[in-house]
Amino acid sequence: MWADLAPIGRDPDSHGYRRSAWTGADADCRTWFQEQAETRGLTYETDRNGNQWAWLGDPTAGDAVVTGSHLDSVPDGGAFDGPLGVVSSFAALDELRARGATFTKPLAITNFGDEEGARFGLACVGSRLTAGKLTREAAYELRDADGVSLPEAMEAAGYDPSTIGADPERLARIGAFVELHVEQGRALDLSGDAVGIASAIWPHGRWRFDFRGEANHAGTTRLVDRRDPMLSYAETVLAARREAELAGAVATFGKIAVEPNGVNAIPSLVRGWLDSRAADQDTLDTVVTAIEKAAREYADRHGIDLDVVRESFTPVVEFEHALRDELGTILREHTGQGRDIPVLGTGAGHDAGILSESIPTAMLFVRNPTGVSHSPAEYAAEDDCLAGVRALADVLEGLACR
Amino acid sequence: MWADLAPIGRDPDSHGYRRSAWTGADADCRTWFQEQAETRGLTYETDRNGNQWAWLGDPTAGDAVVTGSHLDSVPDGGAFDGPLGVVSSFAALDELRARGATFTKPLAITNFGDEEGARFGLACVGSRLTAGKLTREAAYELRDADGVSLPEAMEAAGYDPSTIGADPERLARIGAFVELHVEQGRALDLSGDAVGIASAIWPHGRWRFDFRGEANHAGTTRLVDRRDPMLSYAETVLAARREAELAGAVATFGKIAVEPNGVNAIPSLVRGWLDSRAADQDTLDTVVTAIEKAAREYADRHGIDLDVVRESFTPVVEFEHALRDELGTILREHTGQGRDIPVLGTGAGHDAGILSESIPTAMLFVRNPTGVSHSPAEYAAEDDCLAGVRALADVLEGLACR
Repeated sequence: MWADLAPIGRDPDSHGYRRSAWTGADADCRTWFQEQAETRGLTYETDRNGNQWAWLGDPTAGDAVVTGSHLDSVPDGGAFDGPLGVVSSFAALDELRARGATFTKPLAITNFGDEEGARFGLACVGSRLTAGKLTREAAYELRDADGVSLPEAMEAAGYDPSTIGADPERLARIGAFVELHVEQGRALDLSGDAVGIASAIWPHGRWRFDFRGEANHAGTTRLVDRRDPMLSYAETVLAARREAELAGAVATFGKIAVEPNGVNAIPSLVRGWLDSRAADQDTLDTVVTAIEKAAREYADRHGIDLDVVRESFTPVVEFEHALRDELGTILREHTGQGRDIPVLGTGAGHDAGILSESIPTAMLFVRNPTGVSHSPAEYAAEDDCLAGVRALADVLEGLACR
Repeated sequence: MWADLAPIGRDPDSHGYRRSAWTGADADCRTWFQEQAETRGLTYETDRNGNQWAWLGDPTAGDAVVTGSHLDSVPDGGAFDGPLGVVSSFAALDELRARGATFTKPLAITNFGDEEGARFGLACVGSRLTAGKLTREAAYELRDADGVSLPEAMEAAGYDPSTIGADPERLARIGAFVELHVEQGRALDLSGDAVGIASAIWPHGRWRFDFRGEANHAGTTRLVDRRDPMLSYAETVLAARREAELAGAVATFGKIAVEPNGVNAIPSLVRGWLDSRAADQDTLDTVVTAIEKAAREYADRHGIDLDVVRESFTPVVEFEHALRDELGTILREHTGQGRDIPVLGTGAGHDAGILSESIPTAMLFVRNPTGVSHSPAEYAAEDDCLAGVRALADVLEGLACR
């Protein structure tokens, strides 16, 4: 199963994955999902927002237990972020069938579309639409770097974009959603555990900083006559690191677009994207406010116009305590080690976080020995992946077979 | 004449020109050149390197007087940089014919290909090849951002790349080359002159700084675990400005490429291009050495691997004093104001600089009231452009009609 998925969208040079939403590589991943569903005799469907579903039992019966994750990737992403959750879902179902489990509730496996937001700049588009946290109108405004709109991209991939939007009927049929994911930090490695349970997702957001100066010739324009936005950008990058360090948060400028981006031209525009996250809302506010204040001072000094636009924001997500505790109990019983499964927070956003306001959701993390994520070097050991499958099977059995 | 050329390759949003070498806009400019030549009964030809020539008189007679410039542009460039010299050349010929001038030497008007180097990263490719300063083998290695090689691009534009290379026979037939160009600084504006003569081109070069770190998740990777190359890049941008200020030189980071360039990914690679120029070689060496030293210190501190590659370098160009003085004498006689035409240096490279080692070359500059260049805001007043045409006609008459 894993072997069929591994080569899709893999860059031969970087060995990283390039599975942006609604591209050819994404379509190949979706075909793989449908084949996995059909091989197992599951009822396959796509919902109005292009998310994929594979049902065991009656989808309309209600109180369904749903598991899954996403198959798209960031540019040059790793093999595990997303796919591990989907592959483990199918593998957990296989495990439960081998155990001879009897399902008392409908079970579904999902692949949520465009989780990473690598193409249209907004993460978790599929789950946001379904949960009514992204309106159809706003989704229609999303465009990729080539100017292709989200509906155009969906249509090109063979999906009908005209019906996208909130899907409360579908959510009402779900009793619990559990997402398994490779850990994107080193907490489990430090605690010596193969599997953990999520407590909360840090609040996080993306801000676009547009520094506008004046394009000019790099060889003939005196330094005093320049309005070079690259200088203010550089100062802001360093300010972001300083402020994040001070507050114990994280802040990153990882994406940039420069115009005209010529070697011998002073830029007219430097557009930098800030990603920042912290354990609580107050800390995050403090960090971002300080970065923006510093950026404005630098911009003023160089005659640069600065616009700061918050492109997305997700408040802190506390996963439902009842479901979280239930997972802890199930796993403690199964491991029989009398040892509690570690419960940990994370700085990464997930579809489970988006859905947590609408339905009870929980997450399982699988150990990542280096903590490296969003990189071809992302890794999880085979034994830990198998432990993740067993844990997910235990949880699904506990939730859907009683 | 100007009106036909003005709309070609103009971006409707920025109003800047996008006439990269061997693109559709470049081809349209070339068609315009050929039409201008044929309308005037000139003999049109392209040389082995794709440069365009329009001849009055016998191209093989020797001691020809040649004028011209280039028609390609930087991304979002202005209307004057390049085209003003070509348009003024045709207009100067019209003026001389109106004066009833009798040519005693062959005259040619040229359009040198790929002067800006916006597409393949190396400026003055057409004149470099002709002058033997760029080998055929090295030219074949040039690639644009999409991986298209220079010979592939030439072939796609209908030119045969198999014969590119040094063209000493052609240069041997040229007695003098004069290039008219819009000034890319404010010296003439400050001195109150419409036209000036070039003394020298500052030495200048392009260096590529590759900062390599480790791609990772921007939300979950602790600051202490990061190897973020954007930080070293930012520090180097600020160091470049500082060192240039100290030395009275210029240094610019105007082009950047980031991998993977995702909002929520710490970059694995930040590639920045430094353009630096100074009035003399020692100063330039001092500035670039200091910037590289600072960059290495920053990179070491953040665990970043740094490669610095000099992509191009042009030593100081002193235009031939005899020809320069002759231009000064001709123009002083014609203006009859008993006033010397200003002689000024420039930080910008030109085809005239490339050819100056092979043949006597000179340059005329036309006043630029703002000094802005490589930008849609680049400008020269109509009166000054007409003064430029008259000055070029005077010079050509003085050189080719005696």
